Amino acid sequence: MSTQHADLPDVSGLSVGILGGTGDQGKGLARRFALAGHNVIIGSRNAERAQQAAESLGEGLTVRGAENAVVARESDLVIVAVPYDGHKALLESLQDELAGKIVIDCVNPLGFDKQGAYALPVEEGSAAQQAAAALPGSTVVAAFHHVSAVTLLDPAVDEVDLDVLVLGDDREATNTVQALAGRIGGVRGVYGGRLRNAGQVEAFTANLISINRRYKAHAGLRVTDV
Amino acid sequence: MSTQHADLPDVSGLSVGILGGTGDQGKGLARRFALAGHNVIIGSRNAERAQQAAESLGEGLTVRGAENAVVARESDLVIVAVPYDGHKALLESLQDELAGKIVIDCVNPLGFDKQGAYALPVEEGSAAQQAAAALPGSTVVAAFHHVSAVTLLDPAVDEVDLDVLVLGDDREATNTVQALAGRIGGVRGVYGGRLRNAGQVEAFTANLISINRRYKAHAGLRVTDV
Repeated sequence: MSTQHADLPDVSGLSVGILGGTGDQGKGLARRFALAGHNVIIGSRNAERAQQAAESLGEGLTVRGAENAVVARESDLVIVAVPYDGHKALLESLQDELAGKIVIDCVNPLGFDKQGAYALPVEEGSAAQQAAAALPGSTVVAAFHHVSAVTLLDPAVDEVDLDVLVLGDDREATNTVQALAGRIGGVRGVYGGRLRNAGQVEAFTANLISINRRYKAHAGLRVTDV
Repeated sequence: MSTQHADLPDVSGLSVGILGGTGDQGKGLARRFALAGHNVIIGSRNAERAQQAAESLGEGLTVRGAENAVVARESDLVIVAVPYDGHKALLESLQDELAGKIVIDCVNPLGFDKQGAYALPVEEGSAAQQAAAALPGSTVVAAFHHVSAVTLLDPAVDEVDLDVLVLGDDREATNTVQALAGRIGGVRGVYGGRLRNAGQVEAFTANLISINRRYKAHAGLRVTDV
């Protein structure tokens, strides 16, 4: 582990923006990155709601809220945590603001019915590939699909027990996102393959939901022998 | 862990058949189940090749070889470890022999090119669902996708460090297969969802191949908080 991870870049000075950060997963990630010392901006269509979400995380954290476009423009790294509905349209509307940046997609295209969660078909193969198609000027990386919002937001949890799988076609970008994942206590960023193999990682969130239901858990994955 | 797994059935007396067991994954599973005390039959289209594969595992193991149809008829539990090509046709030809049995599909429909492995589209959604469609009289469970053949066959490895995700729609059958997975030293069988969510588990094998290449590892998954 230490060998493979020793050469990851220092990302401690980078600011993190979270588009659609008013949902539980966005807020949970915002909280953890702020705890790690990052300046974080939560984004929403509505700046006031974004600011409320930032304030809901409590005093003393370096988190503020802003409109999505402001977040996209002002952040060093941008995480996309919007619902799958509207994902493509939002990213297309932010092409200019996101150009030249690493954009981290953590969207899980899932449907739900009486039997639980299931993977939705995505024309581009995955939400991450949809993001890459919508953002030709950005470097899209897929990551943070499996983190439990409940765990991220739980003040009693110091160490989050999972590996974040990081997928992408640009080594510098995946290294950067692996390093970012490692800023969350207990988490390790593990390279998980090219973007064309992101669909099954997104879809696997449906399995984690089934596992959580069966075992009354907040399950995550660890990769062994790495 | 102990709580959730305490109620799994005792499968120690069950014989295990492995269709297409002459490949490395089939042989590896055969070896581990024989080491655990099971009677194992390796299947092949050619009984002689099956017998050779059984003998290649070494002396003193309760493994023999036979034609696939004999394996299907005589085994309590049947694992399908054939290449994806020919998977459907083989199962359709064994409908009668497999009727009333638990059939464990571990087939990963993958393609390979210069960039590595990728998931192949499957009309039925997954190899496991294809098996269920081909075998209306059997109870299909998906499992053992991520076990490394190299590790299973390595005499130096006593404890295999991974969880086997077990998917299916019949609780008794998934419990049985979870228990079977637990017969391999170090392995835990973890319920992973319904059969409709098997596709991403099969496809994830492509990611493990990418991870193995990047980290020079034989990676597996562990599920945390379970």
